[in-house]
Amino acid sequence: MAAKAETHARPLEMEAIESRVDPGFWDAVRCLKLDVLSIDDSPVPITGCYTLCAHPKIPGLVRLSSKSLEASPPFHSRNNCIVPRTLVNTNNMLGFKNLDVDLLLKEEGKRIFYDILSGKIEEDPTLLLRFLVISFVDLKNWKVYYDVAFPSLVLNSKMTFLRLHSASEVLSQEEETSLSKSMKVWRDSNETTGCPFFWVHIYSDSSVVIRQLKCWKGYSGDHQKLLFGFYDHGHQDYPGWALRNYIAFLSLRWKIEKVQFLCYRERRGEPDLEKSLIGEASFAAPHGWDGSDYVPEIIGWEGEKAGDRKKEKILKPIDLDSLNPASQDEEKQVMHLKLMGWRHPSLVLNKLRSARCLVLGAGALGCEVSRLLMTWGVRKLTVVDGGCVAIPDIVKQSLYVDNDCGVPRATAIVPHLKERCPAVEVEGIQMEIPVPGNPVSKTKMSSVLDNCKRLQALVASSDVVFLLTDTWESRWFPTLLCANENKIAITAASGYDSYLVMRHGAGPGHNLSTEDALGHQRLGCCFCK
Amino acid sequence: MAAKAETHARPLEMEAIESRVDPGFWDAVRCLKLDVLSIDDSPVPITGCYTLCAHPKIPGLVRLSSKSLEASPPFHSRNNCIVPRTLVNTNNMLGFKNLDVDLLLKEEGKRIFYDILSGKIEEDPTLLLRFLVISFVDLKNWKVYYDVAFPSLVLNSKMTFLRLHSASEVLSQEEETSLSKSMKVWRDSNETTGCPFFWVHIYSDSSVVIRQLKCWKGYSGDHQKLLFGFYDHGHQDYPGWALRNYIAFLSLRWKIEKVQFLCYRERRGEPDLEKSLIGEASFAAPHGWDGSDYVPEIIGWEGEKAGDRKKEKILKPIDLDSLNPASQDEEKQVMHLKLMGWRHPSLVLNKLRSARCLVLGAGALGCEVSRLLMTWGVRKLTVVDGGCVAIPDIVKQSLYVDNDCGVPRATAIVPHLKERCPAVEVEGIQMEIPVPGNPVSKTKMSSVLDNCKRLQALVASSDVVFLLTDTWESRWFPTLLCANENKIAITAASGYDSYLVMRHGAGPGHNLSTEDALGHQRLGCCFCK
Repeated sequence: MAAKAETHARPLEMEAIESRVDPGFWDAVRCLKLDVLSIDDSPVPITGCYTLCAHPKIPGLVRLSSKSLEASPPFHSRNNCIVPRTLVNTNNMLGFKNLDVDLLLKEEGKRIFYDILSGKIEEDPTLLLRFLVISFVDLKNWKVYYDVAFPSLVLNSKMTFLRLHSASEVLSQEEETSLSKSMKVWRDSNETTGCPFFWVHIYSDSSVVIRQLKCWKGYSGDHQKLLFGFYDHGHQDYPGWALRNYIAFLSLRWKIEKVQFLCYRERRGEPDLEKSLIGEASFAAPHGWDGSDYVPEIIGWEGEKAGDRKKEKILKPIDLDSLNPASQDEEKQVMHLKLMGWRHPSLVLNKLRSARCLVLGAGALGCEVSRLLMTWGVRKLTVVDGGCVAIPDIVKQSLYVDNDCGVPRATAIVPHLKERCPAVEVEGIQMEIPVPGNPVSKTKMSSVLDNCKRLQALVASSDVVFLLTDTWESRWFPTLLCANENKIAITAASGYDSYLVMRHGAGPGHNLSTEDALGHQRLGCCFCK
Repeated sequence: MAAKAETHARPLEMEAIESRVDPGFWDAVRCLKLDVLSIDDSPVPITGCYTLCAHPKIPGLVRLSSKSLEASPPFHSRNNCIVPRTLVNTNNMLGFKNLDVDLLLKEEGKRIFYDILSGKIEEDPTLLLRFLVISFVDLKNWKVYYDVAFPSLVLNSKMTFLRLHSASEVLSQEEETSLSKSMKVWRDSNETTGCPFFWVHIYSDSSVVIRQLKCWKGYSGDHQKLLFGFYDHGHQDYPGWALRNYIAFLSLRWKIEKVQFLCYRERRGEPDLEKSLIGEASFAAPHGWDGSDYVPEIIGWEGEKAGDRKKEKILKPIDLDSLNPASQDEEKQVMHLKLMGWRHPSLVLNKLRSARCLVLGAGALGCEVSRLLMTWGVRKLTVVDGGCVAIPDIVKQSLYVDNDCGVPRATAIVPHLKERCPAVEVEGIQMEIPVPGNPVSKTKMSSVLDNCKRLQALVASSDVVFLLTDTWESRWFPTLLCANENKIAITAASGYDSYLVMRHGAGPGHNLSTEDALGHQRLGCCFCK
């Protein structure tokens, strides 16, 4: 059946693309920003996927998911065309508000323009769908503000729909069957399924051949039977947004001024030629596009129409708070460290997180050190103390409160640490630190020896030992154990108007001047002469 | 009625004195130690009171009460003879255990010995009852360990009871009536009621005259009718301990070798001559006491008998915990400060206690500063903050716990401070600190102005202002207010590996080089050029 005569001429109307950004994408961006980018705010290449409309109620969208930040995302499937994008993520709200959105859009549009002129589009048609995301991830408040643009070249010449019909109305039964069959093959082939722009040649025997754009060169055939097809994300009775840059391409690169186009649509994975549209559009060659520095007008911020770009941007906020709330608490608790890590790369959080810290003494020093270790990202603590909380303690030992009076410190400290950092693994051990030289009664001898062995085992299974008891004498035996096990030992003491913090044993570097009898290079201790 | 003939001769037996120490006395000693003596452990003169036995079931005791540390205690009443003592309070348990108790007892006994020889006893007979308390006040554990000694001179010559009877048996009815009458006058007179040693002359007409020791000189009369009387604390059928030193006095000073003595006892404030004893004792002049350096043997540790002084001292522990438990908690909470004050007298606790501190900001800095102010004895706090507690805060801002999330910091901080120091008066004010230069919308204008006025009033009513907000900008307006009100202002800030603490305004001394336009000598601020 021959194509119908044109019914009326009208301006080219197209259905806007919608973006859909999974919260998972923003969570991935948040992590990227926090863990990798830090203060670097240069644009990041990402990939989205462009999908056909699968169901009238689920319009085709450009989607970004948690995989979009991966170098080779696993999108290249039947329902996803990989689309390159640029993400511009700013460091703060002011930077976001001050972004020159016109310039950014223009830059992105220029890349499409030059890809058209250079012929790059023929190699990779998805470049016509290139687009842009701007965002500010408010890390501390777990919010994202963003906007999306689909840069589209505006031809400065008149463009007219000559006619537009359902494909099934325009094609004969045989042509329709043949096209359906060919499209299925196209869509099922690994090579072509992700190719959203193509051309269709319908021979006079109703057979159909679908070709990639790169096959155009040198082609010259019956224009009556030539359809410029594209995957149409829309489901209205007019074409989707992708046609806009396609026409710009046809006009600029192939110098065509009148085309028959096929808005290819599917329904539940099958070609739906009733919904697919075949139309005809004519467009004069645009003026002055040949000038070497010429850049066409670009439009495309989502939700905006040409001409209203000057109004204040309405930010799209996304709350990340609802994502994985369980693991999020811990994320929030280490964020300040990650942010500090932006400027102090020597802060290696994984080392701190996995370090097993043994805190000897849970008094004024023990409380503060245990809490501050958590603040600095330590999550494995063992606290040893032999005493009980008393009234005078609670005004000096920061973690205890009136209800703890009479409770062993090693027991009382555990919930206080956990209620400040639910992720901490903390064990409290009620035990007196043995002090060599102190008199031991016969009845207590075996329990003191048990304590010695227990302390040795604790030191051996720790990475760092903090000596925070209230006498120097009680630091002596643990100091020996640390030296013997070659563990980092840190002693701290405070007085009326002075304090001391000192590291023993294994030093921070490997070039220590001190070498002990075992050949360990290490720092001296506060008992060394 | 004539005195009965002697019935039998036996060694002199005497009833030991008991001491009764009110816990109030020990609390007074605790306060004296903590607030006045500090590390000074030299002996302290104190006064006790010696009482007659008032009732068979309430033996006469030497008492120490909370007034015993006063210079002129109000004891000089009918029932109390003021007795001088010495308190030796050591600084620690080791010092207490190492006390040379024999030497101490000897020293105290020597004073009695010399007072006898010098005639001082005649002027002040209570010196014969002089005694000694040794103690260690364990301030941190609110315990007292003590012992009491009544130093008694042991005559190294034989001493024998020749007879011993109830006074009413020995005296005639007339003599008894007369003695009762005279004793009542003696006891009712201000001059003599506190005089526990005296002599009684019974004339042949049964009239009785009681005389003070100092009236002995030159006396020469009928020895048959002469009684050496003393207030007898005991109620047994043998004399009380006080007779021991009295006989030493009579022998050494007055060279008497045989005396009739009167153990004067009362019952419900009336002379009880039935219970009172009249006895006769003979004692040879001791050997060698005239040697210039001679010191007699001294006994007298409470509960010990002559000869068993070498056994280990059994400490008498007293728990002060039960005294005024309400005010005690606060006492316990400032004890570390008082102890620090022993060596750092510049620590003036009253100044700190009465200082009204305004804490601006209740984040990481605000939490620590508020708590540490309490640790240093500050008890009047006002905390201002505009924000709410969030998950990331609880690992960094020391006072908050998971349950506080979502609660305004100014509200959440109050119970956390109180549960560490019940005596603190703390007010939390939820308010944003106005920042000059920040844009203010018209709707918020009046509330921001209200905040300005409120902050001004808060600064005006404070003594010290702490600037602990999370930006420098928000410290600007409070800095101005502090300069205007001439208040001490302390700003603190902390970074990754650095911190700043700086005092503005009124300086610690009065000789500052900086003088402002109003003539106030004061320190510059962190905004000064």
